[in-house]
Amino acid sequence: MKSYRLVIDCPDRVGIVAAVSRFLAEHNASIVEANHHCDKQAKWFFMRNEIEAQSIELSLAEFKQEFAQLAEQFSMNWKIVDSSVKQNVVLMASRESHCLADLLHRWHSGELDCNIVAVIANHEHLRQMAQWHGLPYHYVPFNKGEKQAAFDQVRELILQYKADTVVLARFMQIFPDELCKELAGQVINIHHSFLPSFAGAKPYHQAHERGVKLIGATCHYVTGDLDAGPIIDQEIVRISHRDSVEDMVRKGKECEKSALARGLRSHIEDRVIINGNKTVVFD
Amino acid sequence: MKSYRLVIDCPDRVGIVAAVSRFLAEHNASIVEANHHCDKQAKWFFMRNEIEAQSIELSLAEFKQEFAQLAEQFSMNWKIVDSSVKQNVVLMASRESHCLADLLHRWHSGELDCNIVAVIANHEHLRQMAQWHGLPYHYVPFNKGEKQAAFDQVRELILQYKADTVVLARFMQIFPDELCKELAGQVINIHHSFLPSFAGAKPYHQAHERGVKLIGATCHYVTGDLDAGPIIDQEIVRISHRDSVEDMVRKGKECEKSALARGLRSHIEDRVIINGNKTVVFD
Amino acid sequence: MKSYRLVIDCPDRVGIVAAVSRFLAEHNASIVEANHHCDKQAKWFFMRNEIEAQSIELSLAEFKQEFAQLAEQFSMNWKIVDSSVKQNVVLMASRESHCLADLLHRWHSGELDCNIVAVIANHEHLRQMAQWHGLPYHYVPFNKGEKQAAFDQVRELILQYKADTVVLARFMQIFPDELCKELAGQVINIHHSFLPSFAGAKPYHQAHERGVKLIGATCHYVTGDLDAGPIIDQEIVRISHRDSVEDMVRKGKECEKSALARGLRSHIEDRVIINGNKTVVFD
Amino acid sequence: MKSYRLVIDCPDRVGIVAAVSRFLAEHNASIVEANHHCDKQAKWFFMRNEIEAQSIELSLAEFKQEFAQLAEQFSMNWKIVDSSVKQNVVLMASRESHCLADLLHRWHSGELDCNIVAVIANHEHLRQMAQWHGLPYHYVPFNKGEKQAAFDQVRELILQYKADTVVLARFMQIFPDELCKELAGQVINIHHSFLPSFAGAKPYHQAHERGVKLIGATCHYVTGDLDAGPIIDQEIVRISHRDSVEDMVRKGKECEKSALARGLRSHIEDRVIINGNKTVVFD
Repeated sequence: MKSYRLVIDCPDRVGIVAAVSRFLAEHNASIVEANHHCDKQAKWFFMRNEIEAQSIELSLAEFKQEFAQLAEQFSMNWKIVDSSVKQNVVLMASRESHCLADLLHRWHSGELDCNIVAVIANHEHLRQMAQWHGLPYHYVPFNKGEKQAAFDQVRELILQYKADTVVLARFMQIFPDELCKELAGQVINIHHSFLPSFAGAKPYHQAHERGVKLIGATCHYVTGDLDAGPIIDQEIVRISHRDSVEDMVRKGKECEKSALARGLRSHIEDRVIINGNKTVVFD
Repeated sequence: MKSYRLVIDCPDRVGIVAAVSRFLAEHNASIVEANHHCDKQAKWFFMRNEIEAQSIELSLAEFKQEFAQLAEQFSMNWKIVDSSVKQNVVLMASRESHCLADLLHRWHSGELDCNIVAVIANHEHLRQMAQWHGLPYHYVPFNKGEKQAAFDQVRELILQYKADTVVLARFMQIFPDELCKELAGQVINIHHSFLPSFAGAKPYHQAHERGVKLIGATCHYVTGDLDAGPIIDQEIVRISHRDSVEDMVRKGKECEKSALARGLRSHIEDRVIINGNKTVVFD
Repeated sequence: MKSYRLVIDCPDRVGIVAAVSRFLAEHNASIVEANHHCDKQAKWFFMRNEIEAQSIELSLAEFKQEFAQLAEQFSMNWKIVDSSVKQNVVLMASRESHCLADLLHRWHSGELDCNIVAVIANHEHLRQMAQWHGLPYHYVPFNKGEKQAAFDQVRELILQYKADTVVLARFMQIFPDELCKELAGQVINIHHSFLPSFAGAKPYHQAHERGVKLIGATCHYVTGDLDAGPIIDQEIVRISHRDSVEDMVRKGKECEKSALARGLRSHIEDRVIINGNKTVVFD
Repeated sequence: MKSYRLVIDCPDRVGIVAAVSRFLAEHNASIVEANHHCDKQAKWFFMRNEIEAQSIELSLAEFKQEFAQLAEQFSMNWKIVDSSVKQNVVLMASRESHCLADLLHRWHSGELDCNIVAVIANHEHLRQMAQWHGLPYHYVPFNKGEKQAAFDQVRELILQYKADTVVLARFMQIFPDELCKELAGQVINIHHSFLPSFAGAKPYHQAHERGVKLIGATCHYVTGDLDAGPIIDQEIVRISHRDSVEDMVRKGKECEKSALARGLRSHIEDRVIINGNKTVVFD
């Protein structure tokens, strides 16, 4: 079923829901799902309406034109998205295959509703896996002293593929600040700890050293601050003194796959709105 | 902060949200929290709006009068509840103290926003606990052959205390069918298994016998069908072959306390709407 | 690191651990991991010792010979397994790909320490997936009236591949009683509910109908009683009234993959001992 | 059933289990539960045996004398504990009642097998709760500039009550370094975050600020490094953008109660062995 997703955030005040709902009802929109949230501290309002496309008596172009007035009145950031127009997604990886394989299978089996258009990696290991799924595989080496050039090449590929979203599926190079800014809100990473614990390198080693009884993973938007961007989803698993670092790596992979898949799904269904350094996730 | 809770269910059609939102906006209602749900199979719509009481330019009486027209137009079941008018809650128990003690402490510390008005029990064991909390304690013995008389006495007490809600905090007698009907949607039970597994007596023994690796508890409305009423919340905990029945009883108590406390909280905040033999829980 | 796994069960009495430990120490065995369990009801003792292979001053043949006396003395069921001799595993599937893809990737990436030797399926859908992993794919149709013949063919293939373990990775045909008996303790199934709830067909539909707030999956040994064999592992996920049957199917798949992968891993590491209709799982 | 708990840690080498098991078998000890662990990095071995007291043909005094030789041979740290001799436990609190009430009820209902001997608090709020449980309540004010004197008084009370264990049940004053050293391994704290995230003050505010999707609690031994002592247990709960700091405080309390109760139970059953800045927890 084709639907339109109307996603809004704006300063909070009385009458937003009424105005939007009236607008939708006047055009006979049948609402499949509606979510609101008000951040009381920030006095900011968030809203997502999923509308049955065939119910509404407006084309998408007409909707955009007519809704613009209302949006301006409430100083809204807003978009309306046609669910049948899939996002272009580029996956990036290094050596570890579990997140890449997991996302590719979800896509292959129809669970992830997007166009995965390419895989970019700084190793050759995963070429066959990508190619079996019919995807171009771009090997971009990240040699010392040549990282800026490598990222320039990555940037070109992202532009060339008209990627709406870039997923760092255990891609182990740190995105440069300018690229983070250029792609703000479009790059999703999976970090292998329950942030803010164990940011940076070798989080499972850090966790083992500290003797925690839980380990986890965090799916977040990439920003210039390493491992400090807005969190979309987190997952944890219980461990014990019996677990070696290797056990933790193995068990943690389950968390990484789950948190990344859920976070990406929410993102491509336009369920995530960035709110400063946090997120509103309507699920 | 005082609020009004407007809780609605009605046949689904276009324009419900618009009509309700417009009504609220026209009276300047500031919406604290809004939730919708549409049961596509049943073609039934569910809605809960929490409204800042001081924002709205209507008394509760005026609201009821004015909203009635709109409600009729959409064939709504509806209520509007003043959050400052607390529900009267009667707790019922047998010998086991953990659920009773848990609820009483939550109430004592201000976490449960209701008036607990009395404890009824078919044993004397928990009298002191109730009395320390300043509550009357009614011992109603359930001897063989005298159960109907005992339930008549229970019913009288429930009426006398004008109980809005009755909580069976591990009360181990089966409510008779007529009383279930009379108090439909008002009696909350905690069953010590993840229903529908292990309904009936001695669920931990059943679970031990079957060798499950998870045990749990279920908070549900009481109906004439034993352990088969609408489920409000469930909780589980992982176990292993090392756990004896006694260990399972101990670990399961955590599930019972959690599921009951969460379910009761949802109920007294008018977040639960019964939908046939299921529930919509807006949390 | 190569290790030997000594797995024992026997009637409980004083001195078993002492006798076994002394035997191991006398041959200089370095114990990597040791687990005991006593089923007090059944008065039965369970034990698993993982021994560093290079530490012990006995060949496997010598060990078997020397230990046999001690084993007889305590009426032990026992085996000693060389961790470097991998089990042969046959996977069986129908249309659904998620469990098969998950197990194949775990195997491909070295996480599952076994030889997957073939895939048998009653549909053609998953042939390419199996073949990409270099595995023979046997399509065995299960037409009405020809099921016994089909199972005869399955049995032949299992024998031909010298399968130690057969995994029903969402294989949707019911194993006949005789085959269950012939392969007792060797066939692992994943059922898509937290058993004993919702045994049989369409468990997610059953769960949706009942309005539960948790769904799950159960990994168990196959016996002649449908969905009633010894449980190895279970997993659950929280759901709400918002989840349709389709959502439940999607969320449940995560449980199925996890419970099956964990259960199979425990099985191939000889961590599972069947105890009547239950299991002891040393993890 | 009375049991003896033999708890050992020592440098790892071949033959420890054999020697201990032989010793136990020679004295006819029936082992209720046995656990081993080897820290491969530290090359250190940990062991706990729970022995049916009536089965063993030695008095506790005789056991201590006879076992001492074996212990010396393996350079063991060791103790043997009579399960019927309960630990003396002092609870410390501030204003928040949930952890105190939870522990007191578990003790009152026989779930916590120890002698709670007194409550010490730096506020008067919880006096009645303690007294209803028949416990002396010591109010020790912690005024600015007089904290050392207050801790001197706390120390005296701990000595006076011959406390084996001190539980900081949301006691909000930081133990001085010398007292931490004097009571090393005896003081258990509950911190209201999943450490190492959000150490220090106001962890729920920190968590809200950071926008995490999980909050938690950590039960750990108190050391001179604030919130950095060996972790015994942790618990988490899922939250969302809808949760205010107040909601997080409320939901977090569940984690605090669970993690503290489980951690304390493990401690008083001699299941926890400190291993540097980590713990081995045999459960």
